[in-house]
Amino acid sequence: MSDLTALSGLVDPDAPGWSRVALTDFDNAGREWVRQQMAALGLETRIDGAGNVIGRLPGARPELGSIMTGSHTDTVEGGGRYDGIVGVTAALECVRSLRDSGTRLNHDLLVVNFFSEEPNRFGISCIGSRALTGHIKASDMDRLDSESHSFGHALQQVRVDPSALLTARMDMSKVRAFVELHIEQGPHMEEQGSQIGVVSSITGVKRFQAAFRGRPDHAGTTPMDRRQDAGCAAAGTVLAIEQIASSHADGRGTTGLVTFSPEAVNVVTEVANLWGEFRSPDHAWLDDAVRRFEDAAQQEGRARSVTVELDWLPSESPAVMDDALGTLVAQQADRLGLTRSRLYSGAEHDAAIIAKTVPTAMIFVPSHDGRSHCPEEFTNERDVVAGTNVLLNTILQIDSQYGLD
Amino acid sequence: MSDLTALSGLVDPDAPGWSRVALTDFDNAGREWVRQQMAALGLETRIDGAGNVIGRLPGARPELGSIMTGSHTDTVEGGGRYDGIVGVTAALECVRSLRDSGTRLNHDLLVVNFFSEEPNRFGISCIGSRALTGHIKASDMDRLDSESHSFGHALQQVRVDPSALLTARMDMSKVRAFVELHIEQGPHMEEQGSQIGVVSSITGVKRFQAAFRGRPDHAGTTPMDRRQDAGCAAAGTVLAIEQIASSHADGRGTTGLVTFSPEAVNVVTEVANLWGEFRSPDHAWLDDAVRRFEDAAQQEGRARSVTVELDWLPSESPAVMDDALGTLVAQQADRLGLTRSRLYSGAEHDAAIIAKTVPTAMIFVPSHDGRSHCPEEFTNERDVVAGTNVLLNTILQIDSQYGLD
Repeated sequence: MSDLTALSGLVDPDAPGWSRVALTDFDNAGREWVRQQMAALGLETRIDGAGNVIGRLPGARPELGSIMTGSHTDTVEGGGRYDGIVGVTAALECVRSLRDSGTRLNHDLLVVNFFSEEPNRFGISCIGSRALTGHIKASDMDRLDSESHSFGHALQQVRVDPSALLTARMDMSKVRAFVELHIEQGPHMEEQGSQIGVVSSITGVKRFQAAFRGRPDHAGTTPMDRRQDAGCAAAGTVLAIEQIASSHADGRGTTGLVTFSPEAVNVVTEVANLWGEFRSPDHAWLDDAVRRFEDAAQQEGRARSVTVELDWLPSESPAVMDDALGTLVAQQADRLGLTRSRLYSGAEHDAAIIAKTVPTAMIFVPSHDGRSHCPEEFTNERDVVAGTNVLLNTILQIDSQYGLD
Repeated sequence: MSDLTALSGLVDPDAPGWSRVALTDFDNAGREWVRQQMAALGLETRIDGAGNVIGRLPGARPELGSIMTGSHTDTVEGGGRYDGIVGVTAALECVRSLRDSGTRLNHDLLVVNFFSEEPNRFGISCIGSRALTGHIKASDMDRLDSESHSFGHALQQVRVDPSALLTARMDMSKVRAFVELHIEQGPHMEEQGSQIGVVSSITGVKRFQAAFRGRPDHAGTTPMDRRQDAGCAAAGTVLAIEQIASSHADGRGTTGLVTFSPEAVNVVTEVANLWGEFRSPDHAWLDDAVRRFEDAAQQEGRARSVTVELDWLPSESPAVMDDALGTLVAQQADRLGLTRSRLYSGAEHDAAIIAKTVPTAMIFVPSHDGRSHCPEEFTNERDVVAGTNVLLNTILQIDSQYGLD
């Protein structure tokens, strides 16, 4: 709990809530703080080419491979004190517990603070875990933010070398299991009175940028039927996103950001840009939503002689968690006398990326009122402690069962 | 024509088109250039408290009062080389003609380059003419731009004193007539093959800012039916504006600018701001459009539990031009063998403000393809010269007919 408090002090004082946004000095300070804690706990620490802070607790039998745990300490702008951070501080607490009790694991334990998990201003999320598993492309470095700066340039500003990031891949075949503790960020566990969530799958995310290009005409003299208003085409698309997502109980569709240009009240909008996403744990629905969205955006453009260009950002299909690991998590919750439920994650996580190559489990603790990505985000101490205990016991079980036959 | 070319060189080199936006150093340079031209032509020049550049050509019988002409040299961002500028350079050319022909007017001739005619980033237009006629309120100084700077602060940045602006009122009872030459900024004159437009009235403009406030929630975990998405409410309002304006042939409705906050693709939009306007020469329809818009915005908000605050910016009712002056303009066009038509102005002009207290006429020259507020804005030399001749002859007729009985 004191680690959580310490991290909540390393934030941008001029931003709302608790803001430690990736690609800023504040995030750099947070990650350096984590590295120092790791070192103080006796871990071998390194920062890889992708900016991941990695601490290694050597096991008695390193030939068995490693167990990985961790999460992230970057936040959204105006975010809270728990999203990601709980998974990192809990991992540190597990190491502290092992050390204090004189327990030596068989496997190496890798504690990872993943770089830039939240979608950054280039619309790309999970940079660290994507890089670790080789899922960043050289062309991603050229992506531009709303001020036309490239992602590669922004990385250099926080002393991450773009070419090192592209080759930061780790040999994941030596990692036996990955377990991430995280807050739910939704209302289900609190509503069900459950202390531990065993995550069955993680939502798929399809993220896009849509560029609408019309004609900048005089707002007073140009009749409505002669306009090529890119802003209206974008607005129609925002409503289409809302409508498409509302057609499925587990569907989500969000327009995160819209820009109009030129910025003048008396000029018909020439260019509108829109950044948004669809999510669902349901593969088929998500693919269908993407098709319906593409049709709707083109239709809104055609109706106004506005051209539409869609650009799909790095996206994820729904990720299924490992059944055997999920069972292990559930057993630890039961042993500790904690109520539990199974649920899918509507939020994306580094675990969804790691799950592509390593058996992966996620443990959830409740979020009060389901709020997250806002200053009101809250998880009570009892739940944080319960989740940390389940994480530690799960690691101990993996360590005693995996690779020993 | 060389004056037009000279002014087209005094623009922001880093902005698109010809950008000399009010409240910038570029506009200051443009206005200082005009003052120097006035002085070189022998006018008594001054810059009043509102930033208006005023040149006076003394008449033989100053007790008759003055005739006023002029327009503005500020532009929209990414604008053209003719909007406003033609009316200022034509006024200078009239003075040059009078001087070269040794003609002395009876009345004083006032040539005015009005300050900040285009709606600035605070959504306020026609600052100079409003100040001259006492139509700026002290509370307008507190209006904020999208970066939360006040209008008063922005004025000080370009060395205009806010308190001097509020008291810059001129005694308009001494001004016998105001005549403004301007480009049409619409397609009608070119389509009708008319060289001179006699303006019957100037559209009314109702300009507003709408602020939508919802709740910033996690875009993956928050079900669609639990959201308070300010962005979707704003998008619905953008479409309502388009739809309402399309219900009348002379109706215009435009959303000039939209901002979403926080700027993150995975957070439901908490605050959306929208700047827009309605225009029409039809009083009753314009009032009805405003009511329908207010209902639609509240409805879009209510449907999503989003609060809506509407703020009406300084706006104008439709302005009727002086009949007798319009007849004078038409007669000069006929004498010069120019084709002409009567039309209303869909664009707002300083003339609409001045017309509240002084008999006013506007002379239009054609805009190629109806384009304006864009780099493609174009009026050919023949038409600029024709408009300037009609302006000069109209001034001479006013001078010989007004106040002499």
